[in-house]
Amino acid sequence: MFQNFDAPADGAQSLHSERISQLRDLLVARKIDAYLVPRADAHQGEYVAPCDERLNWLTGFSGSAGQALIGRSEAALFVDGRYTLQAANQVPGSLFEIVESPTTSLDTWVKANLKRGSVIAFDPMLVTLQQFEKSSRALAELEIMFKPIAGNLIDKLWGEARPTPPTNPIVVQPLKYAGLSAAKKVAKLQADLDASGDDAVILTQPDSICWLLNIRGSDVAHNPVVLAFALVPKVGPVEVFTSPEKMTPAVSRHLDGLAVLREPAAFEARLKELNQRGTTVSVDPGKTPFWVTRRLSKANTPHRTDPCLLPKAIKTPAEIDGCRAAHLRDGAAMARFLAWLDRAIEAGEPVDEIGAAQKIEALRAETGQLKDISFDTISGSGPNGAIVHYRVTETSNRRLRKGELFLLDSGGQYPDGTTDITRTIAIGQPTKTMVRHATLVLKGHIEIARVRFPVGTRGIDLDPLARNALWQFGLDYGHGTGHGVGSYLSVHEGPQSISRRGLQEIKPGMIISNEPGYYKTGAYGIRIENLVLVQDPETPSTGDRPMMSFETLTLAPIDTRLIDPTLLTDFERDWLNAYHARVAREIGPEVDPTTRRWLKAACQKI
Amino acid sequence: MFQNFDAPADGAQSLHSERISQLRDLLVARKIDAYLVPRADAHQGEYVAPCDERLNWLTGFSGSAGQALIGRSEAALFVDGRYTLQAANQVPGSLFEIVESPTTSLDTWVKANLKRGSVIAFDPMLVTLQQFEKSSRALAELEIMFKPIAGNLIDKLWGEARPTPPTNPIVVQPLKYAGLSAAKKVAKLQADLDASGDDAVILTQPDSICWLLNIRGSDVAHNPVVLAFALVPKVGPVEVFTSPEKMTPAVSRHLDGLAVLREPAAFEARLKELNQRGTTVSVDPGKTPFWVTRRLSKANTPHRTDPCLLPKAIKTPAEIDGCRAAHLRDGAAMARFLAWLDRAIEAGEPVDEIGAAQKIEALRAETGQLKDISFDTISGSGPNGAIVHYRVTETSNRRLRKGELFLLDSGGQYPDGTTDITRTIAIGQPTKTMVRHATLVLKGHIEIARVRFPVGTRGIDLDPLARNALWQFGLDYGHGTGHGVGSYLSVHEGPQSISRRGLQEIKPGMIISNEPGYYKTGAYGIRIENLVLVQDPETPSTGDRPMMSFETLTLAPIDTRLIDPTLLTDFERDWLNAYHARVAREIGPEVDPTTRRWLKAACQKI
Repeated sequence: MFQNFDAPADGAQSLHSERISQLRDLLVARKIDAYLVPRADAHQGEYVAPCDERLNWLTGFSGSAGQALIGRSEAALFVDGRYTLQAANQVPGSLFEIVESPTTSLDTWVKANLKRGSVIAFDPMLVTLQQFEKSSRALAELEIMFKPIAGNLIDKLWGEARPTPPTNPIVVQPLKYAGLSAAKKVAKLQADLDASGDDAVILTQPDSICWLLNIRGSDVAHNPVVLAFALVPKVGPVEVFTSPEKMTPAVSRHLDGLAVLREPAAFEARLKELNQRGTTVSVDPGKTPFWVTRRLSKANTPHRTDPCLLPKAIKTPAEIDGCRAAHLRDGAAMARFLAWLDRAIEAGEPVDEIGAAQKIEALRAETGQLKDISFDTISGSGPNGAIVHYRVTETSNRRLRKGELFLLDSGGQYPDGTTDITRTIAIGQPTKTMVRHATLVLKGHIEIARVRFPVGTRGIDLDPLARNALWQFGLDYGHGTGHGVGSYLSVHEGPQSISRRGLQEIKPGMIISNEPGYYKTGAYGIRIENLVLVQDPETPSTGDRPMMSFETLTLAPIDTRLIDPTLLTDFERDWLNAYHARVAREIGPEVDPTTRRWLKAACQKI
Repeated sequence: MFQNFDAPADGAQSLHSERISQLRDLLVARKIDAYLVPRADAHQGEYVAPCDERLNWLTGFSGSAGQALIGRSEAALFVDGRYTLQAANQVPGSLFEIVESPTTSLDTWVKANLKRGSVIAFDPMLVTLQQFEKSSRALAELEIMFKPIAGNLIDKLWGEARPTPPTNPIVVQPLKYAGLSAAKKVAKLQADLDASGDDAVILTQPDSICWLLNIRGSDVAHNPVVLAFALVPKVGPVEVFTSPEKMTPAVSRHLDGLAVLREPAAFEARLKELNQRGTTVSVDPGKTPFWVTRRLSKANTPHRTDPCLLPKAIKTPAEIDGCRAAHLRDGAAMARFLAWLDRAIEAGEPVDEIGAAQKIEALRAETGQLKDISFDTISGSGPNGAIVHYRVTETSNRRLRKGELFLLDSGGQYPDGTTDITRTIAIGQPTKTMVRHATLVLKGHIEIARVRFPVGTRGIDLDPLARNALWQFGLDYGHGTGHGVGSYLSVHEGPQSISRRGLQEIKPGMIISNEPGYYKTGAYGIRIENLVLVQDPETPSTGDRPMMSFETLTLAPIDTRLIDPTLLTDFERDWLNAYHARVAREIGPEVDPTTRRWLKAACQKI
């Protein structure tokens, strides 16, 4: 299994208390007043390797975002809205104040808790240039110094027990899936460097490096990436700073003449070489560790967005074909799961959240092509479904009960594509209110699925269309409507999104999730998520402007027991019926006869 | 009449050629290579006084936005998309290259036309700090200097013929209309200054100053403002820099102890006084002339948005009552106009665009309360309706013909409120395509009129809802969906808007226009515009979140001959029927029996 269901360790208060106390001794010895411990590693990704779980080691908090600030007598753990409850459960309140960010910013807390003239230290490898500039400016107004110090203090305390950095072998992402050779990608990037007058660019994002070189890895959970930095010069091979232990003969042949692997320790010396007056090395201030830019203080470092971001988001025809194949396979596994679940519930067999998560993972594994799940499955029944980022553990596990809703958000990493699907299932007879809420969520989902929009439209322009039906009834949801999805890469990737902050233009070839929801705290959660592919602009016969649209990639029935047809317009009903006809037609041949019978019934016209 | 219909002067090429030639002599004498002539005055408003019509004097261009750059041998006129055609008609192509901005920026044109080391001079009174910083940075990259020079060169050439600055009397805006006394507004602003630690704020926006002091003026067309700068100190009277000739005994009593009027020439000396180390004077960088901030180089000048902007946009109960009364009066005039137009067309009487514009102005004037029209009426028949900012002249004037559409966008300035309404009227029998297009525009209008939205929603989040129906058919419009409207002040006021750039949160009490459209170049234009008032948040019985909504203020029939009911949802039809019932009920008693009969028919259920 790719997922475990361990509950956070109990009775760990004395352990964390001891660690905080040791850290405070270090603060005194180093003459600093506070130390910042971010959850991030040097690459600012969603998943970190075990050796980078510093925040968890120190505090016990296991969420995917947050940071702690430990002063000599005070300490705070900053987490966003989705993690405040979890943080309060995991972290001893006697040791840490749980602070909700960005509602309360770091400097607001510091203002109330630290004296003027204090020094807050941090590891410059874990803080980006942009974060550094923002924090140091805000803290300077309070006459507080924000000071980078070499050598991570947590690593010192962690000592021998700290896991070693991963050295898992790199694998080649075949051309038939990537669609564009690494040589061509590098040549294009180098031509762009030449055109902009830059000598080189530093890449700090593992998925950018993997995309550029058509390689994959397994250094962190669920995202098939190689943790690395890279330097792409205008001319000559790409230098990848990651353990050469990860090299295999196949990868060596693949990268021959195109890229060289160098020890991570060599990165610093290479930056020193570049740090000559006149060298122009571009960096992405939102992603690059302050540690890197500090070493380039004499170089010319224009700020540019990671140049791999946009081309990575715009999929090649081969990636699109692969994604379609992955969705056919994944849709068949989902159909088998949904059919199994209906039968089990009808038969009165006990099904719980962990069992459901294990079942969908097992069915995906049975395709024989599953490399990993694309994130920890969210398997939430009843009130657990209302916790947007719920991760079931042995402690929280609930049995699916009749009269409740069950929300399952899951996905697979296949060599040809990444999937991400959410379905909400009626267990037994749903209430009228549940049906109304689910129908309003579906209306938002369909609005995005069938929208047409002009060239230049950004995700921010589409987000309200998914909410409008809910708004009309006084409802909403507290997350974005959609995120970009990689091609056998991160399930959450930029630069596009459908959200209140989605300023990136939507371009043909991008893959985005379409996932409106509604959450009734303490009762149930509803989310309907399909991935969609942006189509080339076309001028409808009724119009005069080229319009883009979405093709829905995900193929699995939407529970019609949760739909009130009287709330749908004719257009919406037509969309749903056409979608279900397509699901039955395309997934039917991929599943066993029992599932096929269930599928036919599930896909009937409403 | 408040509007004239003069065509731009013909055969003016020799005149403008001569003026350019004189300006070029000045460039040589002053050792500068080019001079920037913006359309803006020192207050960056939409309308300028005759003495500030420098761009028009030099080039002949009469649009409301644009700027010219005159080099020693080259010259360019920069206008946005809505003015490229007009500029080409008004400005001799032999003298000026017409450049569409922002498609081509000033620096792009400069790069192609001026040498490195060149000096571009400008009048620092007409360029804001923000514009200065942006342009000087872009030009510095080209090694071109952007240099402020004292004394406007156009004024020098214009000489004696230049009109004198306006000195029209100020009038008091009565408390019964303003709803909050000037003393209370000033006290609140001064308390905010105190809280932020600022010593003073400089106001450069005439409508902000008029709002703050409950005064109005007539220094420019259609906007009842007093052209002025003001200094609001933390303590003591507001200093208003504008000709004391504008003072009357009534205004003197009104401002007693609250504000003093000082000669415009005294402003510079006052800035010099403030320019002491340690004085903190806030400025709005997007509005304040560079001339002002240059004189405060030693002062501390925090950048803050004009502090009157948001409170001015959020109307008082008295302003809202006044606005409702103004809309009742204005709606009656509109009903009389629409009834007259229908009768005239049916009777085969000749009606042309100028006649229509004169008629609606006359009917508004007959209310006995019209102070001015709120902008030049857009009266566009057939293809002229497709020109978004069309202003009819004796030359462009067309007769309204059967089988065409007629677009009328107009408004009134009443002491209790400002109106702005657009109706599109079928002259004779419309085509099916016209009806489809008009119905799609109406669907967008209704979507905004009946939307509910959560606290925190910005205009950018509402804009797509007005376009969605058009998008679905491959159609769109090239302007925003709505702008803020003043209370007997500017018909276009910020900070809110419903548009692609509308980042201001929508707040209860704001008044905004709701005006989606569709324009078929060379054929017709369609726009349906009502003003709406933002309501306090309320939680619907079906929901769990407080939702805001709009109350439609404008009361006039929407032409049902242009509606295809089969394209409307039940909700949309219900909205339209309820709106028309309300128009008949509220406007009926305000009009003559003949109009009332017409109104009853026009407001019938569909």
